[in-house]
Amino acid sequence: MSLIVTGTLGIDTVETPTGSAERVPGGSASYFCAAASAQGPVRLVGAVGDDWPEDHRAALSAFPQVDLAGLEQRSGSRTFAWGGRYLENMNERETLFTELGVLEEAPPSVPAAFADSTLVFLANSHPAVQKSFLEQFAQRQLSVVDSMDLWINIAKPELHSVIESVDGVLFNDSEVQQLTGIGNPYSAAQEILEMGPSFVIVKKGEHGAVLVHRDGIAVVPAYPVPLEGVVDPTGAGDSFAGGFMAYLERTGDLGFESLRNALGWGTVTASFTLEQFGLDGLRGLDLPKLTDRFNRLVEITRLG
Amino acid sequence: MSLIVTGTLGIDTVETPTGSAERVPGGSASYFCAAASAQGPVRLVGAVGDDWPEDHRAALSAFPQVDLAGLEQRSGSRTFAWGGRYLENMNERETLFTELGVLEEAPPSVPAAFADSTLVFLANSHPAVQKSFLEQFAQRQLSVVDSMDLWINIAKPELHSVIESVDGVLFNDSEVQQLTGIGNPYSAAQEILEMGPSFVIVKKGEHGAVLVHRDGIAVVPAYPVPLEGVVDPTGAGDSFAGGFMAYLERTGDLGFESLRNALGWGTVTASFTLEQFGLDGLRGLDLPKLTDRFNRLVEITRLG
Repeated sequence: MSLIVTGTLGIDTVETPTGSAERVPGGSASYFCAAASAQGPVRLVGAVGDDWPEDHRAALSAFPQVDLAGLEQRSGSRTFAWGGRYLENMNERETLFTELGVLEEAPPSVPAAFADSTLVFLANSHPAVQKSFLEQFAQRQLSVVDSMDLWINIAKPELHSVIESVDGVLFNDSEVQQLTGIGNPYSAAQEILEMGPSFVIVKKGEHGAVLVHRDGIAVVPAYPVPLEGVVDPTGAGDSFAGGFMAYLERTGDLGFESLRNALGWGTVTASFTLEQFGLDGLRGLDLPKLTDRFNRLVEITRLG
Repeated sequence: MSLIVTGTLGIDTVETPTGSAERVPGGSASYFCAAASAQGPVRLVGAVGDDWPEDHRAALSAFPQVDLAGLEQRSGSRTFAWGGRYLENMNERETLFTELGVLEEAPPSVPAAFADSTLVFLANSHPAVQKSFLEQFAQRQLSVVDSMDLWINIAKPELHSVIESVDGVLFNDSEVQQLTGIGNPYSAAQEILEMGPSFVIVKKGEHGAVLVHRDGIAVVPAYPVPLEGVVDPTGAGDSFAGGFMAYLERTGDLGFESLRNALGWGTVTASFTLEQFGLDGLRGLDLPKLTDRFNRLVEITRLG
């Protein structure tokens, strides 16, 4: 199997109650790739401007299993930039600024060498772009979409069209509620299943994640991290997605039981991301380190 | 082992977005007893006034394993009464009225026949009352305390004194945060452990529960209930406590592994409570019905 992602590469500026980081590598696809690469190879399709810092390229290149052949650097364009501030408890944040830059231009192209990708992850971007991206992979065996409140607000029909075309939906709890108008994640997921997908994953941040699949339900709590361990939650959701999809790629098993365990691998992958600013928490991450935390997660959730 | 609880018996009036119930049986000790009795015998110590409805006595007596020898009905006194309204998502509520009544009088006495109780649960009441109750059980092997925001506000030193004297603390997440000033449940629980107890259970409502024990950590999600299944969340926390303690009584095992499974039994017990108003969801509950849901909980949390 071969895993591909499209989404954003960004320049992030983050403030938390205990620290801050200026112009660090960010964006949904960056986090996804860095996270997935701890388990196996991953292909990236995305665009940046000519202001993209050289050390951001170096930071991404430090993850050797990320194939950057689909990374377009456009002269005359600006890289997507985002600034945010986390509140006291680290589970709420406010956006300070967003500069869309290259995201307002034509979407990046898919290199011919990537056309045989079988696992497709549509990280957050305009649903029309996600749809056109999806259609370029005739050999896809599993496709999963993420989104954000903005698109639910301004492009709901296009988002519905993507949801009808994918196998899985991976949203956070507030997005699921916004999309369906239902606060209960099980009832809301059921409504999304009726739109076409085989499964819905509801990310609940510090409260873990829920998988509602046509073949069953699975629930995984967040990996227990003490307060002093949480440096920056940015990218935790994208890292969860990266760890989740990479596990499917690594095992080649797309059944419910495999998806259930993939939730756990996504969970432990995300726990590394929030221990540092930017991609630093994922640097040097490998299968033995992930396995240690996965085994600990199995241990704390054991029942019966 | 023999399980005993002291706490409130109340007359509840509840409004939810989908229905309402007037003057139904409520109170922490009522829910605890009814919930615990699905697994085994439980002793109740509590007081009501002469306005206590006859059908409330009948409702409690319908749980044959509840020993009501410690139930004091006082003439000239009023029963504790509470009215509350749940908001749209059923996980927030506002109190409409509280009439303390008999709770402002001397605490109920412990019958001589209950003096040999070994498992002691201090359901929510004034911490000074909890402390004096606790000291009456010289043969106690495990004691657990619950509380509420009111006592953390107005009786913090007395509450600290109880916490220093018990084996376990079972609070909801907002109470843990209020007590310690720490939003992260693992860090907050660690601080409470330093006050003396061997374990802290953080109840997170729809997000499940966390056990932080000197010997390890365990996490259990809430039992998955679709929105239409939630009729009235009142008493879910007390039912969780009842199911938790009753499992310990039933197995006689007070070690970490047993506490871990007790979390699961508390969880599934609470899931029945919120399906009906008052104690109705617990009526007719027995070990086979609990076991069915416990096995389902094991199934959905299975990992690795």
